[in-house]
Formats: sequence, C-alpha cells, structure tokens
Amino acid sequence: MSKSSKAESGEDRLIARYFAPIAKHPGACGLTDDAAAIAPPAGCDLVLTADGIIGGVHFFPDDPPDTVAKKALRVNLSDLAAKGAKPLGFLLTLALPKEIGDAWLTAFARGLGADAELFGCPLLGGDTVRTPGPVAISVAAFGAVAHGKTIRRAGGRPGDRVVVTGTIGDAALGLRLRQDAGAAGRWGLTRDQRDHLAARYLVPQPRSAVAAFLGSYATAAMDVSDGLAGDLAKLCRASGVGAEIAVARVPLSDAARAVIAREPALIETVIAGGDDYEVLACVPADKVEALRREAAAAGVAVTEIGTVIAGQGDTRLLGADGKPLVLAQTAYSHF
Amino acid sequence: MSKSSKAESGEDRLIARYFAPIAKHPGACGLTDDAAAIAPPAGCDLVLTADGIIGGVHFFPDDPPDTVAKKALRVNLSDLAAKGAKPLGFLLTLALPKEIGDAWLTAFARGLGADAELFGCPLLGGDTVRTPGPVAISVAAFGAVAHGKTIRRAGGRPGDRVVVTGTIGDAALGLRLRQDAGAAGRWGLTRDQRDHLAARYLVPQPRSAVAAFLGSYATAAMDVSDGLAGDLAKLCRASGVGAEIAVARVPLSDAARAVIAREPALIETVIAGGDDYEVLACVPADKVEALRREAAAAGVAVTEIGTVIAGQGDTRLLGADGKPLVLAQTAYSHF
Repeated sequence: MSKSSKAESGEDRLIARYFAPIAKHPGACGLTDDAAAIAPPAGCDLVLTADGIIGGVHFFPDDPPDTVAKKALRVNLSDLAAKGAKPLGFLLTLALPKEIGDAWLTAFARGLGADAELFGCPLLGGDTVRTPGPVAISVAAFGAVAHGKTIRRAGGRPGDRVVVTGTIGDAALGLRLRQDAGAAGRWGLTRDQRDHLAARYLVPQPRSAVAAFLGSYATAAMDVSDGLAGDLAKLCRASGVGAEIAVARVPLSDAARAVIAREPALIETVIAGGDDYEVLACVPADKVEALRREAAAAGVAVTEIGTVIAGQGDTRLLGADGKPLVLAQTAYSHF
Repeated sequence: MSKSSKAESGEDRLIARYFAPIAKHPGACGLTDDAAAIAPPAGCDLVLTADGIIGGVHFFPDDPPDTVAKKALRVNLSDLAAKGAKPLGFLLTLALPKEIGDAWLTAFARGLGADAELFGCPLLGGDTVRTPGPVAISVAAFGAVAHGKTIRRAGGRPGDRVVVTGTIGDAALGLRLRQDAGAAGRWGLTRDQRDHLAARYLVPQPRSAVAAFLGSYATAAMDVSDGLAGDLAKLCRASGVGAEIAVARVPLSDAARAVIAREPALIETVIAGGDDYEVLACVPADKVEALRREAAAAGVAVTEIGTVIAGQGDTRLLGADGKPLVLAQTAYSHF
C-alpha cells in the first residue's frame, strides 16, 4: 500500500519492456489501454477458463522462467482443447516478488510469446502487481466454439467408450524425479527416459490439435489435470454414469513403462498423479475408430481404456488380473 | 507440489460450498466443468480486462472479506465502464494461504455474490489454488460494446474538455486514515467524513451507470486507478495531446475539502493518490453539458476540470493562483 513513482510508472515500463513486444494482436492496443477489445467470431459461443499457478506449489522456484510461462498458458489451452474450443486470446495477471529481475522476466516473456504464436492464442492484456509472496501467475483464456457445441463433462452415456489422448502419468513421475534424486537410478532410466518424464512435468502438451473435431465424436470430455482416476470420477458424476477402466490399457510412455516394471506400486502415481493435460472423453463405440484415425492424422494418439456404465459417478479400475485396483488417493488437490 | 485427496477433492468441496451457490448463470455450469460457455451478444465487440489484488499490497489483511471481494470485482468493472462496455461476466483466480478459513470464505463469497447481482456481472468460473504467500485475487472480466465502439485512451483532441466523474482523492485520503491513526483528529473530521473516506478506499464505486452512453460523448476515456495526474498523463500520451487542468475545479467530497482546508499540501495526495475508480474522459466542448445531464440522471456527477491542448502527453496542473502545481509523484505504482 506504499506509493512511489513518476509520470510513467515502473509498472508501465515493465509492461512496455517485456510484454508489449509480445502483444501483437491489434485488440491488445499494445497494452496501453485499460482493456482489450476483440470481435468474437459470428455464430460462436465463447469458452472461458482461468487457471493459476504459484511458485513453490505448481512449479519449482528454480524452473526455467520460459517453461513457467508456457505451463501457465498451456494448462488453460488444455481446458479449451477439451471443450472443443479454438483459442482467441488470453489475459495475464502476474504477481511478482521484489527479487524477480530482468533475466527472469525476459525469459518468461520469451516463453509466453513463443507459445502465444505456437497456439495462436495472443496475449490481450492483464495486470502486473507486486507481491510479498512467491511468483503467482493467473491466466484467463478465451476460445470460440460453434454455438451450442461446447463439449461438456455431462453427456457421457452407458455404452460409450472411455478414451484418452497421449500418455498418462509422465508428469507425475517427472515430478517424482524432481523430488527424489535417487529415483532415476533406482528406476534404471536412460537419459532420454529421464528427460522425457522431466519435460512432461515442466511443459504440458495441450491437445489443441484435437479441438476442431473432438465435438464430432465425444459425448463428454475434460482435460486430465488432477489425475486420471479422480478426473474420470468427476466426468462420471457430471454425466450421471459410472465407468470401468482396464488399467493395463491406460497408455504409458516407454519411460513410464520402465518405471512401472521396476516399481509396480507406482501405477497409483500414474493413475492418480495429475498434471497430464491429456483429453479424457466419452465416445460412442461406433465412433472410436474414426476419432482415433482423425486424431492420429493430427499427430495425437487416442486410446480406448474402458467403458461407460450405468452408475452415479462410481468408477472401477480393473487391474491386469481383472480385480479392482483400490487407490489410497485418486486425485491431486492442494486443499 | 504435495498431493493428498480423495475422489472428491478439497478444492471441489471448497468450490461447491462457497462459489457454486453464487454462480447462477447457466454458462457457469455450476462450476462443475473445465470452462464456462456463453453466447456473446450479436454485433458486439468483447472488452476484456484483468486486475489482481494482493493482501498487504492492495488491501489490508484485516479488511472485511466481503469488501475484499467487492474491490477485486469492482476495479475490473471500473475498467469496463470507462470503455463503454456492459458486463457479461467474470472469472476468479483465488490463491489462498492455509490460515484462511470458513468465516473468511463465507464472507468473501457473500460479498462477491452480492456484487455479481448488483452489477449484472455473473461469476462464470475460475480457479482456487493454495499459496504460501498472502491472499491473491485475480479477476478477469468481460463486457460487450457495440462493434467498433470501445472507448479508447487514444482519441482525445485539442479543444476537448477534460471531465471526471464523482469525486477525486477520497480513497487516497481513506488510505491515509488507515495508515495514520492521528490523521482523523488532526484533520478535524466528523465521524461521517471519516466513514466516507474509509469506505471509498475499502469499496470502489465503479461508474457502470455511465457505460451505456459515455461513448456517445467521449473521444477518449479511462478509469482513474493510479491517480488523476498520472492517469491523465497516460490518456494524453495515448491520444498524442496535452492537457491543462485547473486543480480548483477537481471535484472533492466534503470530507476531502475539510482535509485540504487543514493541510493544503495534501492536494498532492488527492491528485496523485490513486484508487479513485472514477472515469476520466475527453469530451468535445459542445457535448459536455449533455453528458453532464445524462450522467446526472443516472446518478453520477460529471465535472469539467480542464482542456485538452496540443502536446505529447504533457499535462499542466494549474493551482488556484494560476501557477503550475509541481507534484513530487504523479501516479501510484508498486514498481
């Protein structure tokens, strides 16, 4: 609540130096106005999502700043993708402690600008504030989807197949590698396998490539951010159904398979760990193959892992022996 | 980066308990989906803004939680109003330290819900995260304005009059009252005057009532959040003009007038202090009276305080003696 400045404030200079150069969309007004203005595509609904990440909670304080920026944006892009929405842009609220300096901000802005271009999701505005706490980043992202075509968590029907993009558990194992210096050796991982898991934790890969056509197949979808088991339960509760998943069918990377081969109990970390940022969807049985093919053509693997059944949000995870797997924890939560 | 939860996570319960009841807009999906979806009004541009407030920086940790919520939303509503936009909704990112409990959250949600109704700006979604730092609140708000009609900071022309809504300096003096226990006595304020200044700091009054017609009069506008002097300079820079302001014409409340009568030097706090959340606009001379009348009918005072002149962002503040007032600080900034 202190005050100090000159006609052009430090905040203005900070914005002009680091963020105005990456805010190229005309609606952003070079970040010199109170607000951005954009014309939404005609006949579309707006899909709106916000996610925050905090230093020491959602990322390590010594993570490379460009990856921190990418994570902040991508966790939102993952939500838009799962809803079938094409990105329109985002707002950034950045709370900075005093010790954050030029090098950090330069790298952060570079990462943010690169991803804004890569995903066609321009920085439109935001706010920069001082905090006595850790770096805190909130991104609010907006996308467009044909009117009434937003893919919801509700909509899954008994008989639908449960599918998931990419691979599950890599980020949770990558986090373990960061927390447990001996793990990589114990798990017998190659350098490539270690790098793969570490990268999956550091920089999510939102499945934006499936957004354009997911709605033609899926009856319900969400992104897997808090762990497959818990997020599947959320999807089922929203749809008023149950689900039965064959754990052996859950797609794993080479690296994750190597880990599970050494420590089978870590299947729980894989299934419940979180930070996957894959798309989980319910798809009518006769459409799974067509979705799989269209997604493959877009560079995204889609794997059938189970079936939607009647129920009220109850999900069963069946082990390779056909017996239910009971998890101590099914989802990631800081609360 | 710790993990612990059950099928329905603590975050889900927190959202269901405090925020789902106030998220009544159908597009919010009861806060049970990854994202909100709304149909934007046809023929409109979207106006997008985000502002963050941090405990101990933008509000006092012991401020009533309902007022903290209102401030977080209203600073954004103030931006929308200055751009001529009607609110459509907002997203909330709330970072909570462990010590925040039920009473705080209940009051916070009550304040937020009351303002969402009052200003017709529904809670559509957001994120709740854990922080080791202070409470941090980021609001991203969206509004609609007729296509191409967003009021910009750029657009002011020499000869336009400079006008401002409401009264200036109350919040900055209210902040002084909080920081300096002896000030109220020294300034000889009545209880009502003290309460007025304190309330103006605690809960901004966004000028949403002028948004619908401001664009019919103003060539440029912004909200005054960082101090009249500094924000006027920003407006002038964006418009490529200068301005000359008669300090004696700057509208003051009874309370602020009483303060200035005792301590004339505090005119600097009034002019440069910030947190006013009034609208500052450039208006052609022949339209000022019509704007004043329409705003008065909507319950908002509009006062002419000066003139736009040729220049490059240079602003002159003329004292009652006609001599320029030179401020040590012209704007509020934490950087």
